[in-house]
Amino acid sequence: MVGISNIINRTTSLINSRIGRQSLLQKVVKAEELESLLNIFQNGQYMGWSGFAGTSYPKVIPTLLADHVEKNNLQGKLQFNLFVGASAGIETEDRWAKLNMIDRRYPHQSGKNIRSGINSDRIRFADEHLSIFANDLLYGFYTLKKEKGNKRKMDIVVIEATEITEDGGIVPGASVGITPELLEMADKVIIEINTSLPSFKGIHDLVAHDPPPYTKPYQITRVDDRIGKKAFYCDPEKIIAIVESQLPDMTSDNSPEDEVSTAIANHIVQFFDYEISQGRLPKNLLPLQSGIGSVANAVIGGLSHGPFDHLTVWTEVIQDTFLDFFDNGKLQYASATSLRFSQGGFNRLFNNWDSYKNKFMLRNQSISNSAELIRRLGVIAMNTPVEFDIYGHINSTCVDGTKMLNGLGGSGEFLRNSYISIVHAPSVRPSRNDPLGISSVVPFCSHVDHSEHDIDIIVTEQGLADLRGLSPKERALEIISKCAHPIYKPILMEYFIKSHEQCLKTHSSHEPHQLSKAFKLHENLLEKGTMRIDKW
Amino acid sequence: MVGISNIINRTTSLINSRIGRQSLLQKVVKAEELESLLNIFQNGQYMGWSGFAGTSYPKVIPTLLADHVEKNNLQGKLQFNLFVGASAGIETEDRWAKLNMIDRRYPHQSGKNIRSGINSDRIRFADEHLSIFANDLLYGFYTLKKEKGNKRKMDIVVIEATEITEDGGIVPGASVGITPELLEMADKVIIEINTSLPSFKGIHDLVAHDPPPYTKPYQITRVDDRIGKKAFYCDPEKIIAIVESQLPDMTSDNSPEDEVSTAIANHIVQFFDYEISQGRLPKNLLPLQSGIGSVANAVIGGLSHGPFDHLTVWTEVIQDTFLDFFDNGKLQYASATSLRFSQGGFNRLFNNWDSYKNKFMLRNQSISNSAELIRRLGVIAMNTPVEFDIYGHINSTCVDGTKMLNGLGGSGEFLRNSYISIVHAPSVRPSRNDPLGISSVVPFCSHVDHSEHDIDIIVTEQGLADLRGLSPKERALEIISKCAHPIYKPILMEYFIKSHEQCLKTHSSHEPHQLSKAFKLHENLLEKGTMRIDKW
Repeated sequence: MVGISNIINRTTSLINSRIGRQSLLQKVVKAEELESLLNIFQNGQYMGWSGFAGTSYPKVIPTLLADHVEKNNLQGKLQFNLFVGASAGIETEDRWAKLNMIDRRYPHQSGKNIRSGINSDRIRFADEHLSIFANDLLYGFYTLKKEKGNKRKMDIVVIEATEITEDGGIVPGASVGITPELLEMADKVIIEINTSLPSFKGIHDLVAHDPPPYTKPYQITRVDDRIGKKAFYCDPEKIIAIVESQLPDMTSDNSPEDEVSTAIANHIVQFFDYEISQGRLPKNLLPLQSGIGSVANAVIGGLSHGPFDHLTVWTEVIQDTFLDFFDNGKLQYASATSLRFSQGGFNRLFNNWDSYKNKFMLRNQSISNSAELIRRLGVIAMNTPVEFDIYGHINSTCVDGTKMLNGLGGSGEFLRNSYISIVHAPSVRPSRNDPLGISSVVPFCSHVDHSEHDIDIIVTEQGLADLRGLSPKERALEIISKCAHPIYKPILMEYFIKSHEQCLKTHSSHEPHQLSKAFKLHENLLEKGTMRIDKW
Repeated sequence: MVGISNIINRTTSLINSRIGRQSLLQKVVKAEELESLLNIFQNGQYMGWSGFAGTSYPKVIPTLLADHVEKNNLQGKLQFNLFVGASAGIETEDRWAKLNMIDRRYPHQSGKNIRSGINSDRIRFADEHLSIFANDLLYGFYTLKKEKGNKRKMDIVVIEATEITEDGGIVPGASVGITPELLEMADKVIIEINTSLPSFKGIHDLVAHDPPPYTKPYQITRVDDRIGKKAFYCDPEKIIAIVESQLPDMTSDNSPEDEVSTAIANHIVQFFDYEISQGRLPKNLLPLQSGIGSVANAVIGGLSHGPFDHLTVWTEVIQDTFLDFFDNGKLQYASATSLRFSQGGFNRLFNNWDSYKNKFMLRNQSISNSAELIRRLGVIAMNTPVEFDIYGHINSTCVDGTKMLNGLGGSGEFLRNSYISIVHAPSVRPSRNDPLGISSVVPFCSHVDHSEHDIDIIVTEQGLADLRGLSPKERALEIISKCAHPIYKPILMEYFIKSHEQCLKTHSSHEPHQLSKAFKLHENLLEKGTMRIDKW
């Protein structure tokens, strides 16, 4: 494991050039003094970090603490309740999980060890809609269980920034997330200034939360409208330390486009074309949202080769393929809460900083994911689920109903409130002993995050199901015939027909099911390693 | 069945006094001429009605058509695709269902015959979030399947009104619903002016839909803010007939408060008290929403005896107990899309019209149920589900997963977007052969309308479960111990403990389940008439 003494460039004095407010210079803690900070950390504290989707999370302090726990065998003895807008980096939250340093974690996460901790009772995790989470956090709903200290406060908040301005404004980096809420709730704040990055000054639009009653509307009607400030402002008394970092965000590469994601993108392009021809979408579409992950990234890549231009984006996370989209001139502007690029993507960004920096804006996740704005702007939402059922319910989080992947993220906010909600997935995925072992289409979702009422369009490489205006039984026929893999079509159709026959007998055939068989594909997968059942 | 010739007071000339615009007087169709309208109706037409929650729906024309079908044995031969904001009256939509006059029906309904038609394949029904439905309807998403005519049009729209003003404004009655959208989409409009009601002029705030891109914010920050007009305006060329009606809304009485609803209300009052003491709610709370139905009505009755005053309401439907709430001076103002009173409630309203009419406002359902406004105003949402599961998922629509009750209504919009979301239900309900046969708490909801991510508080007469900030397993313990009936507590706890043990073995214990047993209570109910199982 990397030692704390190696992770800061001791010779640099770059940090001073990034702190405009002179009175804060005295709070700079040098690398060799960092260990003096350890005494403020105590078991059971509520801690917030900046970061979203693995960028702009703090690295120096989390690593200092992890080293401390490792060196002194404090695993399970120095634990924190950890709040980050979405996921942080592998070398921080996932290392913390491995060292049993996390008690509670909200509202999203990523990493093998943290996932294992959640699914093995070591970490108490709950996922939540990301915009609502930001609000609820500030209302005090997540600190109700706090055993000591002020229930409205986060004990310690650690954020990464790229500059502190002369007027005391804290300029974040590649993500915003819940940092505004964390700073407002913070008892103590530590700022890591990452001098290996350019200052991101000017690309953020940061809004202070305005709780009910008499909350004002967000006066945004276009993706590039500004309503906030370019920096965070927090009481300087709260800032107990400023440290320098030169550590990069540990993002990984996305999978490249493949046959499946290309086929999905082509179905979506064809659908958009038809909607334009019918007058239900303008020629430059409406602002696009795209979920996190390789399929979503590849679909955006596919769309960037499509016939549409003058496009705009209103989303959570800007990924690598958006750079192609900017480069080919088809994407005009993108608003998000996080830039989540691969290392190569960040290099591309920084090498062409001046040409990109006026093309996007980063906002609070309470704004990027706000129901109010997603609906008003008429966003076209595209997200990849774990599975979906024959009536259009969606599982985005729990494999086989019980095992947490990463969490809900913004999927619910975008799918529910969008102009058109699209979910896309490969029709099948490999299981441990069958390359076609897992059907994305199932009789009944083993966990429901989004209901049939939230979904307009389902796409797999097999085809596109348009569910708008359909009753449940019509939806089942549309989904099975258009989206299911040929191997699973007869299996699903038999379930549907038999369920229908049976429910009709008891005058309960609005949405036919046989509850005793609803999860049979999942049970077969758990027992025999494949959803391909021999008989119903 | 009541004949059309009896339902209009032939002697009255009251209707002329309700039509300010002189040029429209020539469109008045007398009772004896009504049959001449029959020739505009054709099998397969898309038809919209005013109305919401069984008030202010048209009665004369639907009855005319029902009589015509009955007299000429046209059952199943003259069918319509019927769009009403929510439910219409028993003597109209339910009679139509009995006469097999409905092909498609959106997005909500009420009545024995229409429910039976939906659950026996005679009626194609889909429920939808009521605000989103209003938007999607106008976007053309519900007329995609139209076989003939303009796909952006409703062939015929029939509305009840209480006045037409000199400038051509159409003043609705006790509900607004989707009438603004229907009038915009209408090819032909028929207006029934109900002269047995007072003119409701001045109590509405009616907004024309403003679709993306560049939709403007709803500039509402208080429940009594006005942003629209006091009447509907539609192209007078579309109006093909105006007829007089003196028929009342056929609403039924609500069940009175009982021990169960009183206990639920007391738990909620106690919870509000505590939240105020902790600074998480202001002393006059935040705007209240209350679902439709007897339990919700009784809970509002209970709250009206509570210690809170200067209250406000932002809801879908104002029911009888709100009148008590106004009368005792504790409720300042209520905004909704429908007044749904019993006959006695309407008498009380009309007898004290001048004292009540400045205390409430009726809006489009796209506004009353708007995610933007529910979240901004910080609404406290309270709704009664069919069932909820041990992790906090909610079934609001389908009994045993397959049999439609009334539809989703606004439950999803209010529960998802509220400041605090509360669901309340009796812990048990009687089945056909066991007075305690149906537990409201189940291992896995047989249909999921609202996910664990949307729910803060669950209340039964047994107690109140506060789920905020809890991980799934903590939620299960809270819900089972606080909300389940004593008969079902050990049954549910055994499921939870065994599921947990099993999932822990496979490192998938985030949200423990045994999929093969998840619906065992429901299966037992279907087979043996009770959820009380002998063993797991």
